[in-house]
Amino acid sequence: VHLDASNLPVMARGCALLGAGGGGDPDLSLVMALRALDEHGPVPVLGLEDLDGDALIMPCGLIGSPSVATERLWSGDEGRILRESVERLRGQRVAALMCYEVAGANGLLPLTWAARMGLPVLDADGRGRAFPELQQQAMHLADIPASPLVLTDGRGNAQVLYAADDAWAERLARSAAASMGGVCAGALYCMTAEEARGAVIEGSLSLALTVGEALATGEVDALGEAVGAVTLIAGKVVHVERHADDGFVRGSATVHGTGHDAPRQLRLELQNEFLLAVEDGAVRAAVPDMISVLASDTCDPIATERLRGGERVVVVAAPGPAVWRSDAGLAVAGPGAFGYDVKYAPMSGAADG
Amino acid sequence: VHLDASNLPVMARGCALLGAGGGGDPDLSLVMALRALDEHGPVPVLGLEDLDGDALIMPCGLIGSPSVATERLWSGDEGRILRESVERLRGQRVAALMCYEVAGANGLLPLTWAARMGLPVLDADGRGRAFPELQQQAMHLADIPASPLVLTDGRGNAQVLYAADDAWAERLARSAAASMGGVCAGALYCMTAEEARGAVIEGSLSLALTVGEALATGEVDALGEAVGAVTLIAGKVVHVERHADDGFVRGSATVHGTGHDAPRQLRLELQNEFLLAVEDGAVRAAVPDMISVLASDTCDPIATERLRGGERVVVVAAPGPAVWRSDAGLAVAGPGAFGYDVKYAPMSGAADG
Repeated sequence: VHLDASNLPVMARGCALLGAGGGGDPDLSLVMALRALDEHGPVPVLGLEDLDGDALIMPCGLIGSPSVATERLWSGDEGRILRESVERLRGQRVAALMCYEVAGANGLLPLTWAARMGLPVLDADGRGRAFPELQQQAMHLADIPASPLVLTDGRGNAQVLYAADDAWAERLARSAAASMGGVCAGALYCMTAEEARGAVIEGSLSLALTVGEALATGEVDALGEAVGAVTLIAGKVVHVERHADDGFVRGSATVHGTGHDAPRQLRLELQNEFLLAVEDGAVRAAVPDMISVLASDTCDPIATERLRGGERVVVVAAPGPAVWRSDAGLAVAGPGAFGYDVKYAPMSGAADG
Repeated sequence: VHLDASNLPVMARGCALLGAGGGGDPDLSLVMALRALDEHGPVPVLGLEDLDGDALIMPCGLIGSPSVATERLWSGDEGRILRESVERLRGQRVAALMCYEVAGANGLLPLTWAARMGLPVLDADGRGRAFPELQQQAMHLADIPASPLVLTDGRGNAQVLYAADDAWAERLARSAAASMGGVCAGALYCMTAEEARGAVIEGSLSLALTVGEALATGEVDALGEAVGAVTLIAGKVVHVERHADDGFVRGSATVHGTGHDAPRQLRLELQNEFLLAVEDGAVRAAVPDMISVLASDTCDPIATERLRGGERVVVVAAPGPAVWRSDAGLAVAGPGAFGYDVKYAPMSGAADG
């Protein structure tokens, strides 16, 4: 399997849905990745079983404010800087890159880096969706440390963070990203293939392709068949409240049902990603399940930062990755981890595995 | 020459004066250093000529907010963490520590570290006084880079910064210090003894001892003989305005002359250090010359953060290090570098060398 111009746009669309409104806008990253693939050839996609046990995997992506990430141009050389630092720190060559989150821009920028360096990418990620905080990684649940964590702005500045724990890593990395202009490229949770077994979420790139193919049909029902998504409401965005601070975008949006769904109302709570869908005071869907807002006409997922009043949309929810629906997973990335006094209940249609 | 319980308190007093009101409160650092010397023996003081050309020198001290530095307790183990990082980065043993600034706490904490590690300290520093910004170092003028810069909070967190230039190093380090609680221990401008020749300010520890001995006489005149200091005014502090933000303490203080000096008034402008002394609209002394406020009864220098209205004081000024009175030095650390529209004129009594 490899990624090339034939399947990358499809995957990008899947990444947008897995972003659950976050993960950064994939449009610009797609253009960059297509250009890198055109110049350097397709990127091989490997499974964990294709790597020797001691092969070094470098999870990577953007760290910082998604609002700034969307506006920032990248040279594409950031991956090389990260890789060289990691190789110096570990005294070992990097065998494969891994998207730390196969969602939004973070599902695509590592492909640009891989193409330019002639490295394969792993069919896996650390989230299976997008999350706002650094330590919300499957590797964190498996006790693999985020440190040493390498950051660069690609403009001559780089930082290596040795954090006391992953909560400190989040704090130090957020501050470092802010000091380098709001967003930076990062490598974190580096590990061997053997350490990665059972610690990463396998099949994430394949999932993004499957989701992208379903979205390409233009039929929301296809998403249900592909990933068990259900439609929460079809209607019109009537209110968006959003503010950006300390690297987060926080707010809420309300969708008024139209047609069969009138006069229902659905409220969405967001923190970089859409995290809760509430109707008449009852939670219809909650993080770690994936809530996405699709444009009615194109089925394109809309990022939390791009959502505007007046838009016609379909709100869908798909079951989140199994690892996040465990007790340990919910403690790190369930509604309570985001400050919501909501007990997570699996959405209808959620199946484990 | 070595530092022990017999001369360290004298030197601490000299460091307080060279701090020009900044550099962090030396009291707590003196207690720590005396204890470390008691446990581990005296610290040898070397000149550059005592080191091989390729011997590695590690300039170090505290980085961040002086207000927080005064309140923060250190384990004394921070120097070891810095040294191990530097040795790993350079692939070379550290031969000697150097205070990056022989002023305030930064003139003493490296001695605690040196004592605990059994390392000598260099009779030199990068400033010859205190300054607020990282790149205000004689090594900067000599084109030795601050990076790679190592920071630690001594509580399990460490960061290595590779900055594009020294201005970025200042920016990144300030942010990193803030994220680790406001202040941290740092090693920067690491260099070989050969690189240090002509790049560091030699004789700084000896100068602090000389100044400390002069202060110990309790006679301000002794300071004049020792370092060419002149008395600007003797009087009473009538007004102190001070605010702390982004790691700086900024403000001003006014001293009303008493006795022979009545009814004169002297205004002091401060940014961590006392930077300007103004009388009747005329600049009496300006950075890089060292302005210090001494308690009338004890001749003890008072830190900018400790100055209070009502105190009886003598304000003195001593010529700053020659390197800072050059055109290149003034560009980095003259009045203009601090935003004052003031042309530096050497104070009366200032002699080069």
